[in-house]
Amino acid sequence: MTDLVLHEYAASGNCYKIRLTASHVGVVLQRREYDIMSGETRSLAFLSEVNRNGRIPVLQIGDRFLPESNAACVWLADGSALIPTDRFDRADMLRWMFFEQYSHEPNVATLRFWLHLIGETALSDMQRAQIASKRTGGEAALALMEEHLASQRFFVADMPTLADICLYAYTHVAEEGSFDLGHFPAVRRWIDAVAALPRHVAMED
Amino acid sequence: MTDLVLHEYAASGNCYKIRLTASHVGVVLQRREYDIMSGETRSLAFLSEVNRNGRIPVLQIGDRFLPESNAACVWLADGSALIPTDRFDRADMLRWMFFEQYSHEPNVATLRFWLHLIGETALSDMQRAQIASKRTGGEAALALMEEHLASQRFFVADMPTLADICLYAYTHVAEEGSFDLGHFPAVRRWIDAVAALPRHVAMED
Repeated sequence: MTDLVLHEYAASGNCYKIRLTASHVGVVLQRREYDIMSGETRSLAFLSEVNRNGRIPVLQIGDRFLPESNAACVWLADGSALIPTDRFDRADMLRWMFFEQYSHEPNVATLRFWLHLIGETALSDMQRAQIASKRTGGEAALALMEEHLASQRFFVADMPTLADICLYAYTHVAEEGSFDLGHFPAVRRWIDAVAALPRHVAMED
Repeated sequence: MTDLVLHEYAASGNCYKIRLTASHVGVVLQRREYDIMSGETRSLAFLSEVNRNGRIPVLQIGDRFLPESNAACVWLADGSALIPTDRFDRADMLRWMFFEQYSHEPNVATLRFWLHLIGETALSDMQRAQIASKRTGGEAALALMEEHLASQRFFVADMPTLADICLYAYTHVAEEGSFDLGHFPAVRRWIDAVAALPRHVAMED
């Protein structure tokens, strides 16, 4: 099998979702850690060799590089039970993965990064000015998930798919961004269900 | 064939990309227009029947509803030449589509919406405060596209895919968000190449 290297910052949910997908499909990843706080992913070497976009994660597949966490998950899960075979369900899985990147991650993940990993006192004025709108956006994303999960065990087709893996990554640590999951009981039940799946691995593993 | 209804606001690039995909794969969509300026997609009827997320576009497939523009494009293009058969290329196509929703649309599309469709004088203070950072983000997205397209005719596998369709939608009208495409000659050449494809339709069609 081709060597697989995950270029990552382990505390990032976007990196964790790739490790979680790999575990579910039984694939071993080599891991290479970067210190994003010191700008290691903005170095000339990283930009020219790994990702011109200066972001982790990137999944290296042999000598090819695949940025964007959800795309890397799709590559890993190709042909597995994590991707539905039904045409509508497969598109509906991607629907939740696009929702994750557009409506969830920029709010839920960014507030966690700012408040938990950087720390509020170290934020710029521009960042501090966006906290309120990101809280509103993150709560709206969680509320949409709550409504959906009130009548569904998993996001798509009553089975665990990449939509669950990708949404789980930042949702299960949303309280580190000071979101109160006590307001979202169906989301909490779903978090427990994802964590109870065979082959689950924790973020800190 | 199942009835397909596009719930849309025609001037939105996210809606246009679905019409463009449908044209490429030879599928006819019924179209239902909503006035997003008057909040028609936030009405109780829309929220309960079409999309709880209160956003267009939504592709209705019979009695099922598929939000998220890029997911709708995948559903429409399923099995067509717009989706590569190679595993890496298919994931790489999604990589550019996630890039589009995460790094491109929130900047390039939002500035066009604010400056061209709403008008700068009608913006809120919160919106006006974000113009500079959205301009920086949009220019970074266009610069990344420019670098990639300097050595590639299309985004993936040297052939037109959904990555091109989805990125084209807002890029070809980026100047309406006051981005200067004169700085991005490879992007302009690619815009012309996408517009010259058989079965292309314009945004205003």
